[in-house]
Amino acid sequence: MERPPRMGSSLFPAPFQDLVDLFRRLPGIGTKTATRLAFHLLQSSESERQELASAVSTLKERLLPCSECRNIVASPPPESPEVPRCAICLDPARDSTILIVVEDIQTLYSIEKSGEFRGRYHVLEGRLSPLEGIAPEMLRVRELLQRLENPDIREVVLATSPTTDGEATALYLSRLVKPLGIRVSRIAFGIPVGLELEYVDEVTLIRAVEGRHPF
Amino acid sequence: MERPPRMGSSLFPAPFQDLVDLFRRLPGIGTKTATRLAFHLLQSSESERQELASAVSTLKERLLPCSECRNIVASPPPESPEVPRCAICLDPARDSTILIVVEDIQTLYSIEKSGEFRGRYHVLEGRLSPLEGIAPEMLRVRELLQRLENPDIREVVLATSPTTDGEATALYLSRLVKPLGIRVSRIAFGIPVGLELEYVDEVTLIRAVEGRHPF
Repeated sequence: MERPPRMGSSLFPAPFQDLVDLFRRLPGIGTKTATRLAFHLLQSSESERQELASAVSTLKERLLPCSECRNIVASPPPESPEVPRCAICLDPARDSTILIVVEDIQTLYSIEKSGEFRGRYHVLEGRLSPLEGIAPEMLRVRELLQRLENPDIREVVLATSPTTDGEATALYLSRLVKPLGIRVSRIAFGIPVGLELEYVDEVTLIRAVEGRHPF
Repeated sequence: MERPPRMGSSLFPAPFQDLVDLFRRLPGIGTKTATRLAFHLLQSSESERQELASAVSTLKERLLPCSECRNIVASPPPESPEVPRCAICLDPARDSTILIVVEDIQTLYSIEKSGEFRGRYHVLEGRLSPLEGIAPEMLRVRELLQRLENPDIREVVLATSPTTDGEATALYLSRLVKPLGIRVSRIAFGIPVGLELEYVDEVTLIRAVEGRHPF
């Protein structure tokens, strides 16, 4: 990612301005918030700064992808023979007949937060995109098909985004999975719960009409 | 500062949740933003994480207080005989007859950002507070009086906050400085520029009336 250009000549000394610039690169953080964060850290305790720095710096090495679904798992102690598996994949109470395919871990946790879905996940790690040159072999498609060899699985839910690429990915996967005799479904698109209809865009609205069901 | 309690049992593996919790301690960062920041860092490059971690971790050692005004200065190379002085104190074009006293570096930069004030600063590093047990000798009052021995200085502007403690600090300082034959002024309080009068609280409004001037 590009570092955003400095705002004119900086008033701050370089080490402070550098931190402001690094914060400004983060999503949703503007110059004002970045400056406030930098001042906060300047005035906090040495231990608060070191704790944050260390959590950022070791984040990746302290996490591994789950060998089943690619959710994140805390790394096992070094030289542990354990194959990392996430809490969801290890939970015997989860329904192993249904697998939901998501593009990324954020979506996994969004679904998980509702507490309503009791099946398991498969993180695709992206979506097909001819424009960005993302082909099926760059996603975890092969691993999905391997997991589907498990005869327990009865249904695959495709939870890719309702974008052109996300739809193409869902279509591609459905064509691979259906011939295996496994039910394939797509998450429903429609009106977000709690939203006034006047604020809903037409594409969403027409998909909600198309997806109507008996009342 | 207390670490805020976790929101129920965490869905995330510990190393990820730890980072979310550390972000949530920062001012103006809620759970949602903290989670977004943690996911962003999880998915960014190793160098982006290390750059941010290092900027946070070395922030304090890469900055020194200006020996004159206590603004922050980039640390000189180790073993440099230089006494750290900030760009403002070093700038010969600044008006050395006027000194503005601020509580903290944030206020210094807020004034500096306007580009209108051409004098120099004195950072008090706090304000008097009987309740919090902050006495004059815990602030940079002695250093202010030492600086006022410089016969160039004609005016001291007191820019402490319009709070009980800030007002008491201004009063205390004015009683120390006036006998030295130096003009003492207080920043004006009144209606913030650009604000509709109906949104202004009564205390501000009455101070604006008291501070009226010929039109």
